Amino acid sequence: MSDLKSKFLEVYTALKSELLSDPDFKFTDDASEWVEKMLDYNVPGGKLNRGLSVIDSYILLKEGRELTSEEIFETSSLGWCVEWLQAYFLVLDDIMDGSHTRRGRECWFRLPKVGMIAVNDGILLRNHIPRILKNHFRGKPYYIDLLELFNEVEFQTASGQMIDLITTLVGEKDLSRYSLPLHRRIVQYKTAYYSFYLPVACALLMAGENLDNHVNVKNILIDMGIYFQVQDDYLDCFADPEVLGKVIGTDIQDFKCSWLVVKALELCNEEQKKLLHENYGKGNSACVANVKALYNDLKLEDVYLEYEEKTYEKLMNSIDAQPSKTVQEVLKSFLEKIYKRQK
Amino acid sequence: MSDLKSKFLEVYTALKSELLSDPDFKFTDDASEWVEKMLDYNVPGGKLNRGLSVIDSYILLKEGRELTSEEIFETSSLGWCVEWLQAYFLVLDDIMDGSHTRRGRECWFRLPKVGMIAVNDGILLRNHIPRILKNHFRGKPYYIDLLELFNEVEFQTASGQMIDLITTLVGEKDLSRYSLPLHRRIVQYKTAYYSFYLPVACALLMAGENLDNHVNVKNILIDMGIYFQVQDDYLDCFADPEVLGKVIGTDIQDFKCSWLVVKALELCNEEQKKLLHENYGKGNSACVANVKALYNDLKLEDVYLEYEEKTYEKLMNSIDAQPSKTVQEVLKSFLEKIYKRQK
Repeated sequence: MSDLKSKFLEVYTALKSELLSDPDFKFTDDASEWVEKMLDYNVPGGKLNRGLSVIDSYILLKEGRELTSEEIFETSSLGWCVEWLQAYFLVLDDIMDGSHTRRGRECWFRLPKVGMIAVNDGILLRNHIPRILKNHFRGKPYYIDLLELFNEVEFQTASGQMIDLITTLVGEKDLSRYSLPLHRRIVQYKTAYYSFYLPVACALLMAGENLDNHVNVKNILIDMGIYFQVQDDYLDCFADPEVLGKVIGTDIQDFKCSWLVVKALELCNEEQKKLLHENYGKGNSACVANVKALYNDLKLEDVYLEYEEKTYEKLMNSIDAQPSKTVQEVLKSFLEKIYKRQK
Repeated sequence: MSDLKSKFLEVYTALKSELLSDPDFKFTDDASEWVEKMLDYNVPGGKLNRGLSVIDSYILLKEGRELTSEEIFETSSLGWCVEWLQAYFLVLDDIMDGSHTRRGRECWFRLPKVGMIAVNDGILLRNHIPRILKNHFRGKPYYIDLLELFNEVEFQTASGQMIDLITTLVGEKDLSRYSLPLHRRIVQYKTAYYSFYLPVACALLMAGENLDNHVNVKNILIDMGIYFQVQDDYLDCFADPEVLGKVIGTDIQDFKCSWLVVKALELCNEEQKKLLHENYGKGNSACVANVKALYNDLKLEDVYLEYEEKTYEKLMNSIDAQPSKTVQEVLKSFLEKIYKRQK
């Protein structure tokens, strides 16, 4: 494990013990045991990319000057706030989607002792973020911007989740509602803001920047987030399971508004459209195979590769148009991490 | 309807349309239709006591001087934030408790088109609060205190809900876990902070007060909130359904940590305790009747009336010890509203 990551994990332990002795709530033994288990199960078990990228971005913004131990603690704390936000969304998303596994084990709400208490646990996770911010950033000149940033991003994520839910779940499965603009809108709000914009915005605030002066940075990161989700949609169907490290996805069975299906709808003829309508969102393997065969007929792998090339080029051009070299570096470091990723 | 209440309801309409044209999210027609329905179903249908008490308290703090239209709008907006917070908790609590009705109609999540989307709707309700605060209080000197106040109270409410859930739901029903201190702790966190302290704290902030100077006010309001919940527990079993305006409660069947059962546990002999353990939390009507007969044997109605008298007296003494006459008035207006309430 890198030195940075092990320091990052140390900060998790410190934040957790602070939360378990929060002066605004008198914990019983039962309660602190519950919260500790819930945190350990849901917060630190992911890849931690979003959290770590707060630190990475800040280091780049500091142009290589070594961080003080205070700076390491503070950037890590903000990184953990992003991870806490993610944990909150995942715990609740899994309930709404009726999912079974997450990060290789049972979803939290599936544990026999947990069940619907998981709804309140999600809320607790969300509530920990302002506690952490208050404990460590209250005296900072950017404290209020930080609070508003997390509020704004949470609002956008929940709004994106709403359009996803009301188009995917409500009423009958209706493929004709799916389109590229809808896909883009869902992904932008549901994923891009919190996964790409939020970590960089945290780093910018810590570096003393005013976020109003970085609207272009925001737009580039949103576009990168959309590209990231298109990759996800592609890998769900076309990835090599051995490389991906998890079993092949079920977007087709689950009637997901995936980039692949909206692209297929755009490219197909009437006959193919009929096939898609008849087979998409069905559990049985013959239907799934029909959809995959159609994806192959439409050469969606090639379409994807072309999309990836074009998107990369466009993003690079936008990045190069940024006035600040250090900001360019931050953005490029993100893009290089995801370009042509296989998992 | 009082003039104040009709003005309060006008502000709801104004806040709702602002939220539906929030610049941080591009609404589709489907999305704004959904949010509007969800708000109308869940936010304004209650008694609105909590929201209106922000305005009432502020009027008292202003010592009868007439409010400007701006002050009316602002106090009403904060009142609505309290109602929004309540709606958020109720939508999610109903899911966790598997409830069927709320405010005389089906719970939101029970509507066929809604289901588990209600989890995200709860989150949206919660997210509206900082939107409202940002829109109308951003320039105020107490803006940050307001944000922190709502964060603190939400955290305490969710923490109270957690201890309620882990003692009531987890594992087997175990009556021996219930006690007066546990009851007090649950009620204090789950109900008293947001129902009693929050509205007054909003009014105090608007009146330019520093909340750190009002710790006693907070403690008195918390005690009042606990008294209010004890009344609720009492009325759940002993109220006249005609006066209460709703059917008799099901705390006994639901194995609730009610004030009545913890009092009964305190007062009963070994034989009666055995009966309680055998009959509490069972659905069938013979068991419920046995518990009620025991409550009568233990004269819980008299015990309650005595509790009410003593609590009233103690609260009045604490209020009279407050240095500020106007603050005294605010607190007394709350107490008079609930003293000896029958519904």
